[in-house]
Amino acid sequence: MTAPDVVARLVAELGDRVDVSDAALAGARADKSGHAASGSPLAVVTARSVADVQTTMRIASETGTPVVPRGAGTGLAGGANTGAGEIALSLRAMDRVVEVRPDDLIAVVEPGILNADLNAALAPLGLWWAPDPASREISTVGGNIATGAGGLLCAKYGVVRDAVLGVDLVLADGRLLRLGHRTVKGVTGLDLTSLVIGSEGILGVVVGATLKLRRLIPGEARTIAATFGDVRSAAVAASAVTAAGVQPAIMELMDATSLAAAHRLLGLPAPTPGAAQLTVQTDGPAAHAEAEAIVAVLAGAGGTVRLAADDAEAQQLWTVRRSMHPAMETLGTTLIEDVSVPRSALPAMFDEIARIEQRFGLTIPTVCHAGDGNLHPNFVFSGTEVPDVVWDAAEDLFQSALRLGGTLTGEHGVGVLKRRWLADELGADQWELQRQIARVFDPAGILNPGKVFTP
Amino acid sequence: MTAPDVVARLVAELGDRVDVSDAALAGARADKSGHAASGSPLAVVTARSVADVQTTMRIASETGTPVVPRGAGTGLAGGANTGAGEIALSLRAMDRVVEVRPDDLIAVVEPGILNADLNAALAPLGLWWAPDPASREISTVGGNIATGAGGLLCAKYGVVRDAVLGVDLVLADGRLLRLGHRTVKGVTGLDLTSLVIGSEGILGVVVGATLKLRRLIPGEARTIAATFGDVRSAAVAASAVTAAGVQPAIMELMDATSLAAAHRLLGLPAPTPGAAQLTVQTDGPAAHAEAEAIVAVLAGAGGTVRLAADDAEAQQLWTVRRSMHPAMETLGTTLIEDVSVPRSALPAMFDEIARIEQRFGLTIPTVCHAGDGNLHPNFVFSGTEVPDVVWDAAEDLFQSALRLGGTLTGEHGVGVLKRRWLADELGADQWELQRQIARVFDPAGILNPGKVFTP
Repeated sequence: MTAPDVVARLVAELGDRVDVSDAALAGARADKSGHAASGSPLAVVTARSVADVQTTMRIASETGTPVVPRGAGTGLAGGANTGAGEIALSLRAMDRVVEVRPDDLIAVVEPGILNADLNAALAPLGLWWAPDPASREISTVGGNIATGAGGLLCAKYGVVRDAVLGVDLVLADGRLLRLGHRTVKGVTGLDLTSLVIGSEGILGVVVGATLKLRRLIPGEARTIAATFGDVRSAAVAASAVTAAGVQPAIMELMDATSLAAAHRLLGLPAPTPGAAQLTVQTDGPAAHAEAEAIVAVLAGAGGTVRLAADDAEAQQLWTVRRSMHPAMETLGTTLIEDVSVPRSALPAMFDEIARIEQRFGLTIPTVCHAGDGNLHPNFVFSGTEVPDVVWDAAEDLFQSALRLGGTLTGEHGVGVLKRRWLADELGADQWELQRQIARVFDPAGILNPGKVFTP
Repeated sequence: MTAPDVVARLVAELGDRVDVSDAALAGARADKSGHAASGSPLAVVTARSVADVQTTMRIASETGTPVVPRGAGTGLAGGANTGAGEIALSLRAMDRVVEVRPDDLIAVVEPGILNADLNAALAPLGLWWAPDPASREISTVGGNIATGAGGLLCAKYGVVRDAVLGVDLVLADGRLLRLGHRTVKGVTGLDLTSLVIGSEGILGVVVGATLKLRRLIPGEARTIAATFGDVRSAAVAASAVTAAGVQPAIMELMDATSLAAAHRLLGLPAPTPGAAQLTVQTDGPAAHAEAEAIVAVLAGAGGTVRLAADDAEAQQLWTVRRSMHPAMETLGTTLIEDVSVPRSALPAMFDEIARIEQRFGLTIPTVCHAGDGNLHPNFVFSGTEVPDVVWDAAEDLFQSALRLGGTLTGEHGVGVLKRRWLADELGADQWELQRQIARVFDPAGILNPGKVFTP
């Protein structure tokens, strides 16, 4: 069947859910990584129901047409980029909260709801859903699940797989499976819910989720800022906080370049040249005592430490951190990386980044979820194509992280940008096994082909 | 190759790791469910190293001999029962703590270590591993992972999959895979670690694990006991605690028959006839305030409530709960079930149990992890064979749990005892998909055949 025939079938069965305008097609080519698929998709289908998704997959399956599932397009690894000959299947319009059970601490949602909108709906009930990517204002819960996107709170409140009890999944051939359960415990059969979390659209299309909620944390949060003469000292201090047995809710590290860029963007006074900053939040009934303990650890590690006097000061500190992404964009085109290492290895990983900057003559401003060991080094360059030297430096970065007991990606996923290093981490046997598992879900390989695994 | 040839090959390569004594073979036929495989295994191999496991699997694979991995044999679903023509592969002797990193909050362990021994080793470092099955004194971490056995603390401290970062897995053909990571976050490729958790030995042999640890909880725990005129009132009160937004560390419910049996076994005064009991523990910095809030909820729900005055009284209350298993054994032969329902459905589930008792003329003493909605109804009968009426009643129980939004098994697994109901919960499509995934790991089907899936 030719491409026009596929589009005609989609239109015949799905009507105005199918968009072939240039703007829609161009938009579906890219995510927030700054990278775009080559060529233009066949069509963008905006599903409004599970049945729409099933219809799309049935047509795709019968015509052998690849499908790329897509939320809000905020991914950073190219996982949702849709190229020539492919259908972009948007879940963004399926954004209802289907059910909230405060007594059971669960919510059932459609995948297209934004993280921030979900938490806005839950807050009046005294509830929240913990996964907290920095993009929470613009990213969807479904995308969060599909990538396993964690965020700032993971060390204390867990990763995505800890916060999802069940997933409704449409398979490549259009069949609907209900995976998981609504109960706190459940071990009936294989845990396919966890397998789908972070699977980046290659196993099926997430059309619904049963989420494990938390009660809003009582008490007042405290915020601490500490500056250090260099980034390594800040990393040593962050590891010391974890090792001291205090549990921050959030602990973020900004190196000198990124801190200065954020201050510049926000029109704040320039920080001391070379200074790196740790910003830490404690919460819950022991927030005050924990904040005081952390102040002591950071001061002992040589930091200039300040406990925010009030909420306004705390908010400003967090605004600096949350403006990191736009601040990076003021420096040039960026390739943002996402390695994660054991927390004790943070100082060594910053040493490696300094070495890589030297070796390749690059600037690599880095922000880091220091509470959990997840670093986001930003490779800055000019133009739209990633230069070879940046790829070489990224390769060095990945190998360094693996040597330190780390992983390629903590929360962004593999997508297209990291697939060529996947086997380095998994080993050839596991890589092949994973590929075979994906084939069980999608024998013809029409779901997000070329993502995660090399073609 | 004949059975004697297989044993000869095992002995030739593994020497004194191979035991064919009648006592060893008889012991490997059963677990703690009270059910035994028919026939006697070929041999019991007690592995002392990963290499021993690989050798066993290689021989098994080359000779087409089924292998049943086994920890301490404390399972309750027959999952480790080894029958005619099969090799029992014991991991119990691989019981080392390989590495503990207090600064990274991780431990690397061999699978045969007992849960209690692990926590005894971690305590001096101010650390613990949260999964807390009632069998913790006699059950292994590997078995815990293989079954997804949760325990008493899951509502507050999570289930097994929340507490495991990585698993080393020997495949059916003897190859070793290292799944997962050592970092808090990690989304590189498919989450096979979670897939292995609760997979009951059908995907591979767990030969090592990287565990996510917690700091010991500061402050003094508080214990509350509340008795109610009947079990339904106790269940309503338990749901009210969850709905009130207080988070107990533990909340256990014992119905009248099980409470009386435990008191009898321990030589305590008989409880009021018909009375059911909730036993609740709070911990952490807010333990005292939470205990007071729970006392108020339970009293408001009509309970006779007592806050334990001291540690001795608290210990006695927990001894009653922890003696439930031996207490049940004084009543006759038992088939212990393990359904889990959303917490709000606990009262309705107890109604169903009362209906099933009536319908089938049975006594079904029930204990319940009321904090997370996981019930253990005990079907009591005489003799060693489960009578048909008990299976019929169990079927009714499972269907009732599913109707209430629940699941067949919260923490014991499917094993052989629940496999005939697996497709009822998963649906035919998911059942078949899961079976195909298992075949990717084990194409010849030699790993724990006949467990989980019907043959």
